Amino acid sequence: MSELCRPSINMRQLYHTILSPFCRKVRLVLGEKKLEFQLVEENVWKPSDRFDALNPLRTLPVFVDHPAEEGASPAQVTNSNAIIEYLEEVYTERPLIGGTAIERAEVRRLSGWFDERFYAEVTQYVLYEKIDKRQAGLGAPDMDLVRLGLSNIAHHLEYISLLMEERKWLAGDQMSLADMTAAAHLSCLDYLGDVPWVHYPYVKDWYVRIKSRPCFRSLLKDRVPGLAPTRHYTDLDF
Amino acid sequence: MSELCRPSINMRQLYHTILSPFCRKVRLVLGEKKLEFQLVEENVWKPSDRFDALNPLRTLPVFVDHPAEEGASPAQVTNSNAIIEYLEEVYTERPLIGGTAIERAEVRRLSGWFDERFYAEVTQYVLYEKIDKRQAGLGAPDMDLVRLGLSNIAHHLEYISLLMEERKWLAGDQMSLADMTAAAHLSCLDYLGDVPWVHYPYVKDWYVRIKSRPCFRSLLKDRVPGLAPTRHYTDLDF
Repeated sequence: MSELCRPSINMRQLYHTILSPFCRKVRLVLGEKKLEFQLVEENVWKPSDRFDALNPLRTLPVFVDHPAEEGASPAQVTNSNAIIEYLEEVYTERPLIGGTAIERAEVRRLSGWFDERFYAEVTQYVLYEKIDKRQAGLGAPDMDLVRLGLSNIAHHLEYISLLMEERKWLAGDQMSLADMTAAAHLSCLDYLGDVPWVHYPYVKDWYVRIKSRPCFRSLLKDRVPGLAPTRHYTDLDF
Repeated sequence: MSELCRPSINMRQLYHTILSPFCRKVRLVLGEKKLEFQLVEENVWKPSDRFDALNPLRTLPVFVDHPAEEGASPAQVTNSNAIIEYLEEVYTERPLIGGTAIERAEVRRLSGWFDERFYAEVTQYVLYEKIDKRQAGLGAPDMDLVRLGLSNIAHHLEYISLLMEERKWLAGDQMSLADMTAAAHLSCLDYLGDVPWVHYPYVKDWYVRIKSRPCFRSLLKDRVPGLAPTRHYTDLDF
């Protein structure tokens, strides 16, 4: 693996795994905020000793910050929501949860919708069966469960379509964490070729806009060993 | 039903269901912040027309705020995390996500742990089988799934014990949202008599402290029709 995988002591680090929507959401937010960081890949099923010491609960992502103040100790934050709220509080430029209290609530509502409902109904089934089982050595995917997850995707894509008819971005006129979260989940499924874009032109247009942003480049370079992405995964115009 | 179930136009309302940890978490936060509100009970499986119009996605809780400024329109917030962050921003007295950015991250990490992991591994199984199926008319609980959920409770209670050996409250010296979230999940299981308190004296001591607070009184008065709580549910010294 590249030099990116050896954590240095003076740079921000994000411990992650490639096809996790929660890790990808944080990567997109760090990218949009133009914060430099080092990616350190971990497998929660076979954690390194270093990662086990860092986070005995073995959850990903884990963010290690090195505050600018001289002599300040590194700050470690676990849980994708906690990391993003921390980044919004500490690095206030280019906010992704912006606007009035009620506009911020709408961003968090939609971000929560994708992290909770879309994950429970769609991503969880597909990623557990196709990716986690592979990483954990638990055998072949149960294709009935994959199909169940994928049959649930329709009403979520219809919901995004509905929002896109009236809004420029998911939560309103500004791009926000809601867009990052939804795109993080969809990008994992898209790697596997599991998003029926052709039926949802509004969703595809919105996704192309997100996918074209510099913050997305790192995600498009991801490769799961032995599992190539679908042909259009890296195309900005698919 | 009581007068509490008829929403008035000038008071804050929380649309909720009784044994939902996400609704209970918001009730505890509203109570700790000493914000008056009206509880409106809903059943997501058989929603009222009013609720369907309010939240077509049919998720609970939904909070309706009536800002103090004259002429301001009511503000509606959905998703328990979005509601609580909104309350923290708008009603800054008695913060439940307080301290430095890193202390706030620890509160959100632990609150996320209970809403995500404890829910996925414990509460979800038990409440779906024992409560949701009953409300939705889907038949008897699958006791194998209930037992699976309850067998997962041990490592979470051990984790709380471990924290309680070193800390006054879950996230540190101050009571916080982390305590509210953990107590919200445990209180649903406790209604059903499903928490093995006797093996976890540190956890029990912590829970007694939370349970004795005024914000908890409303939860202790809850009754699911036809399903009485366990004998010790309302005892402050059990």
